[in-house]
Amino acid sequence: MTSDPEADFTPYLPQKAAVVGCGVIGAAWASRMLLSGVDVSVSDPSPNAEEILTEVLGNAVDAWDDLGLPTNAQGTYTICRSVAEAVAGAEFIQESAPERPDVKKAVLAEIETAAPADAIIGSSTSGIKPTVMQEDMANPERLVVGHPYNPVYLLPVVEVVGGDLTTIGNIRRAQGMYAAFGMRPIHCRVEIDAFIGDRLLEAVWREALWMVNDGVATTQEIDDVMTHGFGLRWAQMGLFETYRVAGGVGGFRHFMEQFGPTLDWPYSKLMDTPDFTPELVDTLVEQSDAQSGMHSIRELERIRDKNLVGFLKVLEENEWSAGKVIADQR
Amino acid sequence: MTSDPEADFTPYLPQKAAVVGCGVIGAAWASRMLLSGVDVSVSDPSPNAEEILTEVLGNAVDAWDDLGLPTNAQGTYTICRSVAEAVAGAEFIQESAPERPDVKKAVLAEIETAAPADAIIGSSTSGIKPTVMQEDMANPERLVVGHPYNPVYLLPVVEVVGGDLTTIGNIRRAQGMYAAFGMRPIHCRVEIDAFIGDRLLEAVWREALWMVNDGVATTQEIDDVMTHGFGLRWAQMGLFETYRVAGGVGGFRHFMEQFGPTLDWPYSKLMDTPDFTPELVDTLVEQSDAQSGMHSIRELERIRDKNLVGFLKVLEENEWSAGKVIADQR
Repeated sequence: MTSDPEADFTPYLPQKAAVVGCGVIGAAWASRMLLSGVDVSVSDPSPNAEEILTEVLGNAVDAWDDLGLPTNAQGTYTICRSVAEAVAGAEFIQESAPERPDVKKAVLAEIETAAPADAIIGSSTSGIKPTVMQEDMANPERLVVGHPYNPVYLLPVVEVVGGDLTTIGNIRRAQGMYAAFGMRPIHCRVEIDAFIGDRLLEAVWREALWMVNDGVATTQEIDDVMTHGFGLRWAQMGLFETYRVAGGVGGFRHFMEQFGPTLDWPYSKLMDTPDFTPELVDTLVEQSDAQSGMHSIRELERIRDKNLVGFLKVLEENEWSAGKVIADQR
Repeated sequence: MTSDPEADFTPYLPQKAAVVGCGVIGAAWASRMLLSGVDVSVSDPSPNAEEILTEVLGNAVDAWDDLGLPTNAQGTYTICRSVAEAVAGAEFIQESAPERPDVKKAVLAEIETAAPADAIIGSSTSGIKPTVMQEDMANPERLVVGHPYNPVYLLPVVEVVGGDLTTIGNIRRAQGMYAAFGMRPIHCRVEIDAFIGDRLLEAVWREALWMVNDGVATTQEIDDVMTHGFGLRWAQMGLFETYRVAGGVGGFRHFMEQFGPTLDWPYSKLMDTPDFTPELVDTLVEQSDAQSGMHSIRELERIRDKNLVGFLKVLEENEWSAGKVIADQR
């Protein structure tokens, strides 16, 4: 089931895809595509691109093995020296360049010099509107935002957003390709900055930063409240479904009657953002080091993946939520 | 490990506890205590209190059985006709009355007429400051907030907050009792409205309501982005640890350099709250019905518990986060 009752897309696996920008996100995109059997050309200005790709792909293969998904029909990857070389002949291109509108626009211009005119271009941007990114494009009708959540090879959601010049047909084609990569493409029908998920994440991020800034709680304490409390809930039921359950047999209306008014209480401090003084940055870094510094990033990634694999297995066994997407993939 | 490096409490299981207010939260508190082997006296003005308690206790027993926690050494419960009868002789009292300061204060006054003067009183309030609740108390030094997350019998976190008149010794005693119920008591050292978790939840709730209000996304779409994306992350790593991993080998400082500035972008709309017009309430109710109306609340509770049991087993096997708390309980 898609979240959009109007959706009418057909899963379609492109023969050849390109990944432009191969940092952590781009490499994870490439890994998901490769594991889906697609040949992927990769370009990135950094000399470390192949190292990042092989490391992330190694994690992805381990994770898919643990989940019992097939890993023996991988596509092949090619590291390219230029964007033009990578995108030539690609049916699908995922752009994961740095998060600045001018950089994104320059990369898109480079892509269009060599990509087939009807290739779908998905952007990994966390918040820039596709209307902004597509304004100088030769074929803007094929640009969509395809915003993933890392680790892209495990978390199935991708938010698909069109700009003013994107056609609905191309949005459906993009959804079909993302679905063929084993993802759940949620079409955000209204174009806003940061789409759906990052608006929520930014709200939490701001509020959490205030608490650290004001000395109310440490990063460890905030994270513990999440992982030992509402984070466990949200891995399997979202905010609205959780609150529906909280409303008891009276359902959502009862919940609203009971808790709606507290929204006007002075509970949060979301009016502006704390200044990123060197002191605040130092505090955040120190607290994060104290919390997690005993693990390397690679260790944390492996722990994260192991946990997520376990959760997804549980969800699949229970035929629930993200687990259904995994089941559909088998 | 507790989150508070200064913490020095000793787990201590009270012989007799009282639960004042037996709705969904109070009943889940009673269930956790009963399963921990404590005798619990319960009072609630509603004639349905015993029905709610037995239903919730049934869910709790199933969940603990699934988790492999012992359920054969339960305490006994007594339904009392008055608050005074319930709290007489109790070493620990958990108050879960409706979320209004005047109601809380009246209930606390009733508790103090009959409770031992040194009984610890924990309040389940989601956001009212203990300093406000304790101002008219005879023995205010023993009042703490003990804010849980539902289902209280499964989610281990409890935020412990003292008011101006609460002694640190009584905060430690309360932490020790919550720990003996199998929980992880996080001491919020700075008293603010809504403590830690509900500040974050309220930020998400507000932003999500704006999206529904503005027609950007439905409750289903918002929930799907959570359960298929960042919710899975937060069941095992919180915001800060997740972002640390996102920063890659550059760590948290690199993450801040990369994404800190986007906080000033116009991503969220958290300046005030939408008006709760009948139209908005209707929209929310309709969307929630469409999303989840095919399941009864009881079904949703069972599904939720099954998922959470699975997650907790995974976390325990991986010796991580909330799973360590379960391991400590065995």
